[in-house]
Amino acid sequence: MSEIIITAVRVIDLRFPTSRHHIGSDAVNKDPDYSAAYCVLETNTSLEGHGLTFTLGRGNDLVEQAVRYLSRYVVNRSLNSITEDLRAFARLLTDDTQFRWLGPEKGVIHLATGALLNAVWDLYARAEKKPLWRLLAEMEPCEVVKAVDFRYIDDALTEREAIEILASHRSTQRERLAVLERQGYPAYTTSAGWFGYSEDKIRRLAKEALAEGWTHFKLKVGGEPADDLRRGHIVREEIGWTNKLMVDANQKWGVLEAIDRTRQLAELKPWWMEEPTNPDDILGHARIRREVPEVRVATGEHVHNRIMFKQYLQAGAIDVVQLDSCRVGGVNENLAILLMAAKFKVPVCPHAGGVGLCEYVQHLSAFDYLAVSASLDDRVIEFVDHLHEHFVTPVRIRNGHYLLPTEPGYSIQIKEESLARFAYPDGEAWQETMQVLRSNGKA
Amino acid sequence: MSEIIITAVRVIDLRFPTSRHHIGSDAVNKDPDYSAAYCVLETNTSLEGHGLTFTLGRGNDLVEQAVRYLSRYVVNRSLNSITEDLRAFARLLTDDTQFRWLGPEKGVIHLATGALLNAVWDLYARAEKKPLWRLLAEMEPCEVVKAVDFRYIDDALTEREAIEILASHRSTQRERLAVLERQGYPAYTTSAGWFGYSEDKIRRLAKEALAEGWTHFKLKVGGEPADDLRRGHIVREEIGWTNKLMVDANQKWGVLEAIDRTRQLAELKPWWMEEPTNPDDILGHARIRREVPEVRVATGEHVHNRIMFKQYLQAGAIDVVQLDSCRVGGVNENLAILLMAAKFKVPVCPHAGGVGLCEYVQHLSAFDYLAVSASLDDRVIEFVDHLHEHFVTPVRIRNGHYLLPTEPGYSIQIKEESLARFAYPDGEAWQETMQVLRSNGKA
Repeated sequence: MSEIIITAVRVIDLRFPTSRHHIGSDAVNKDPDYSAAYCVLETNTSLEGHGLTFTLGRGNDLVEQAVRYLSRYVVNRSLNSITEDLRAFARLLTDDTQFRWLGPEKGVIHLATGALLNAVWDLYARAEKKPLWRLLAEMEPCEVVKAVDFRYIDDALTEREAIEILASHRSTQRERLAVLERQGYPAYTTSAGWFGYSEDKIRRLAKEALAEGWTHFKLKVGGEPADDLRRGHIVREEIGWTNKLMVDANQKWGVLEAIDRTRQLAELKPWWMEEPTNPDDILGHARIRREVPEVRVATGEHVHNRIMFKQYLQAGAIDVVQLDSCRVGGVNENLAILLMAAKFKVPVCPHAGGVGLCEYVQHLSAFDYLAVSASLDDRVIEFVDHLHEHFVTPVRIRNGHYLLPTEPGYSIQIKEESLARFAYPDGEAWQETMQVLRSNGKA
Repeated sequence: MSEIIITAVRVIDLRFPTSRHHIGSDAVNKDPDYSAAYCVLETNTSLEGHGLTFTLGRGNDLVEQAVRYLSRYVVNRSLNSITEDLRAFARLLTDDTQFRWLGPEKGVIHLATGALLNAVWDLYARAEKKPLWRLLAEMEPCEVVKAVDFRYIDDALTEREAIEILASHRSTQRERLAVLERQGYPAYTTSAGWFGYSEDKIRRLAKEALAEGWTHFKLKVGGEPADDLRRGHIVREEIGWTNKLMVDANQKWGVLEAIDRTRQLAELKPWWMEEPTNPDDILGHARIRREVPEVRVATGEHVHNRIMFKQYLQAGAIDVVQLDSCRVGGVNENLAILLMAAKFKVPVCPHAGGVGLCEYVQHLSAFDYLAVSASLDDRVIEFVDHLHEHFVTPVRIRNGHYLLPTEPGYSIQIKEESLARFAYPDGEAWQETMQVLRSNGKA
């Protein structure tokens, strides 16, 4: 094949007006318009690389603009010159000497880094004609770690240790692949338990999800204590006490309140307590976990880089690592997080939902099982059932499991008609939404 | 006085082409163009409120755009409706239900929050006809804490404890004010030791600074070990061993390397080792401090909010808190940080330099001495001698001390002609710079 050159980057401010139906609502994020800073790497061939970063609407333009800025580091480069040293390439993005001040490796600029890096991996996997999980799983251990930036984490995990982890599971990979091909990767559903849903709706959706084969259910909490408990018991009435129920406070509480509230919620026998407090509070999570030992503690969707995850693991602060596919610096940084979690023997249950996150993380979890942790114990991927219709190759769920993606790439490509219709603010969907708001006197 | 209403916010992308002369260069930030997202709150009176957030150039437009977005929370509001509940006002900015996803309270959106909150405090102090330090020092303790968001830090500092700290120093404030009026607040200079300066230049500048009355000098390190030591000894030759020398690695190293390098640099007898590793690495700093007990550890200019500072203090990770006036959420969040530092008995030596930071932090340190820590022991404010000529009321330094500001406000107003000349990219200074670059074949 002739050399693939990235010739241009198309960047789109894509927003879905989900807030009108309370989809995705929780104790903190009350009215999300699921959105994405979306980018397409165009090349001198018919191949493209697609990537996105998920946001909640307002401010998506900032990430879009940051992706445009970072595009200077890919345009006119050959794919090969990037993939032969993916660590160096990631550092180009994170170490821009002026841009770095706005982070480092956090917030808007790191979300943008995630989108662009993921687009490069999508292009790489397509060029290799493999789904991303397979591209990663078939790489030699020393090739995988070449994509990891060990800077600032080598006190917890060295390159040699990472290679040893990967090498130790090579010979048994085929058996695990057979498991994934047969049953898929286990998942849990968040779709029944959004904060803004009525109790009747929660009951009905829990019943329906159970009938569809789900065994793990997540409920949003963080309201009045009595309300949280009542809603929890409604779900328990429907799903029983053998199936798993997780509760998620979305950072609503301070550390002391989180300890009290987690103790109260223990009567629901939650499988984990998610985001009990602020995502920056490593020591706070460690204290909650220490003081409420009967409930497992989870966080990650807002943990912004490998250095934070490293400390969560070093401090014994969490029982579950909920990495996010695009809040951190894309596939590269998630490899670091998967490897650290394996070393510390903490299961990874990725954050998904939003738009595109389910499509992304199915690859990361499959790779984790095949090559890193080599275990499905206590591991489930989040699943949220909306907006998948916009994807060219959406996730496939059967009986509460993600089926292995088969098409080349990272499964993140959105249909051209959706990109046009939901472009903000000029797409038709937004023109219609504005019209509705105007006629309701709200705009 | 008639009610003051904020009628509009003017936002300016202001950049100074400092990279052409290596000003501000260090081991990581090699070519900063000192910049600011600058905002002016216009009112129905002759009063204005000025605020800025410091950046290094590229990406300043992202912060500018975020300030524009957040402006919606001040326009058409009375100053009084804001100042009567400054905690609630700060939360409006940090809790925007969609914008928050891009943080929370970190990166671009939090830098923007800092600029806008500081502009509100500038307007408030002007309306009260007091310099900011005096406005704060004369507030009742219960009024001061009303501006602090204790959410996520009340496990380390309660509102009651904060009031007690402030109340305990009320009766002796006048004595300390006399000290500040007589001698000013002690400072240290970074101007002699930039990374990009030659050894001859470092020697000459150290000599000059000594002659000007400086007693504390900072040197940038993070180069080759032998180079760092040689440069350090050059400064020691000039300033002797009684004066203080601080070294600053600007996050260059991983934890293990930082331990080695700090041990090596111990022969320079540094007064502190600044930013030995990544600013997110609380546990890493704690380990460096534990393993190199002979050198004090400092960080803060990149510590992004009160929750991170809380943990730095809880973990016993640092000997010096280097708060930044605008990386965190403005005066409000810095009050929280000053109060926590006082409770944990760790001195605060603010980060300054950049553009406007010296002008800002002189107020915070004066307030810290008058009302919070009530101590000057081991406390110095950074000073960097450039760009002050652009300010309407620049800092005044005498004999290595900041003299107390006397004019109403937060001292941050930049001259109109400078705002016009350095506006990016249309200001004259940038038109000239582009022309120079073009004629050098670099643009």
